[in-house]
Amino acid sequence: MEARSSSVLIFFFMFLAISSAFPKHKDKYKPCKHLVLFFHDIIYNGKNAANATSAIVAAPQGSNLTILAPNFHFGNIAVFDDPITLDNNLHSKPVGRAQGMYMYDTKNTFTAWLGFSFYLNSTDYQGTINFIGADPILIKYREISVVGGTGDFFMHRGVATIDTDSYEGEVYFRLKVDIKFYECW
Amino acid sequence: MEARSSSVLIFFFMFLAISSAFPKHKDKYKPCKHLVLFFHDIIYNGKNAANATSAIVAAPQGSNLTILAPNFHFGNIAVFDDPITLDNNLHSKPVGRAQGMYMYDTKNTFTAWLGFSFYLNSTDYQGTINFIGADPILIKYREISVVGGTGDFFMHRGVATIDTDSYEGEVYFRLKVDIKFYECW
Amino acid sequence: MEARSSSVLIFFFMFLAISSAFPKHKDKYKPCKHLVLFFHDIIYNGKNAANATSAIVAAPQGSNLTILAPNFHFGNIAVFDDPITLDNNLHSKPVGRAQGMYMYDTKNTFTAWLGFSFYLNSTDYQGTINFIGADPILIKYREISVVGGTGDFFMHRGVATIDTDSYEGEVYFRLKVDIKFYECW
Repeated sequence: MEARSSSVLIFFFMFLAISSAFPKHKDKYKPCKHLVLFFHDIIYNGKNAANATSAIVAAPQGSNLTILAPNFHFGNIAVFDDPITLDNNLHSKPVGRAQGMYMYDTKNTFTAWLGFSFYLNSTDYQGTINFIGADPILIKYREISVVGGTGDFFMHRGVATIDTDSYEGEVYFRLKVDIKFYECW
Repeated sequence: MEARSSSVLIFFFMFLAISSAFPKHKDKYKPCKHLVLFFHDIIYNGKNAANATSAIVAAPQGSNLTILAPNFHFGNIAVFDDPITLDNNLHSKPVGRAQGMYMYDTKNTFTAWLGFSFYLNSTDYQGTINFIGADPILIKYREISVVGGTGDFFMHRGVATIDTDSYEGEVYFRLKVDIKFYECW
Repeated sequence: MEARSSSVLIFFFMFLAISSAFPKHKDKYKPCKHLVLFFHDIIYNGKNAANATSAIVAAPQGSNLTILAPNFHFGNIAVFDDPITLDNNLHSKPVGRAQGMYMYDTKNTFTAWLGFSFYLNSTDYQGTINFIGADPILIKYREISVVGGTGDFFMHRGVATIDTDSYEGEVYFRLKVDIKFYECW
């Protein structure tokens, strides 16, 4: 019985090791506030001006601003104003906007660097949450830092686990953002 | 008499609700340090190389680098090195430089995302203050995060209220930055 | 004897004043964790695609993306994925990657603004460290903020002293990053 529990545990931790960037330290601290939100990014490709929520604004030598660059999009910077929803439906009523930028920063795999804010303006939450961090896109669960906030998130800090909940070619992606605040005021 | 006080109060809070992004939590905590500074941005437009302190360095498809983009400048990134002054006069002796970037990130209204530092080097203050946050420009008072500092601001955190104190067309703007540190070391 | 000690001390502090941006507050607090790492940046110049680790992706009006801009590179943004090593040898086994961006932000001297992450994945450290700050390149020791972390650096904050350990023309530079964490979890 104990042997069986152990092997289940071992399997469980192997699974974590594969699917998370850095599984350690996850459960040592209890968050003082917890929020799960989704945001939806539709990148401008020259034909979708009405629907697009983000645009490529910088690209490396030889690339243009309507097609993501070759070599894992290395060198593209996109600026975005994306709707935030409570569930995974792009057409749900937005509770705020995710605003900022992402940049693809590796030439031999998909990674990005993120600097953005959640601007929340709903009956539940009013305030901003500010994020930065590295995003190794191909790993299922990635962790970035919550470095500050205002309004309902005044002076908060924490860690956000992001997860590419869905993507459609190079036009649409949806990120699930699981925000755990460990410093609340 | 009491009725009158109440209606004055109600009027006062209505005013706050209109002019501030997120008025709550403002007075719950007392800052451990307080600083009010101004910085001045003169954007390069192809003719003002001698005076310009910032330059458009990224733009969406179809735009150029000497005229801010159509659609609320969506997709422009500007890099800046702006003088910081103690009062609202561009020609006052600078006490430091505001350095970093702003990017316009919405296509149907004026909003920006800011990542920058104050590099202060005066008799009063020596050190840096690092900021990031969303800037809904059309709101009178916006709040961004102070995420760290060095020198006299070693490890400080706080919230900065920014306010477009003046602007002249698309060439000059002046931001008043009211910095309240809530974590001092 | 005492006089001699004093003059040695005075000389020592003069040296600090010259070589550091803001020497004060250095020894008031003891770091809870200390890490010294190097990262290596090889910028793409149109001929070194195989070795380059960074690329110019934004430039001011009139400049291109394979030559750093005139006027102290003002207006260039570079995106990078640079190897991190434990010593100053580019060919040492990397312990992680430095990922993010730097932008040159002054037209009459060399300064940059940095937003990047260390993504560490070695036997010693697994996790990310997130940095932002102003970099007055010509000063020997500059200080930027550690604004958050994940994994082994969960919720950490601190100050990093950076130092251009070596550079070769406009193609290669190596930064020594001395990270002192003052808030560990």
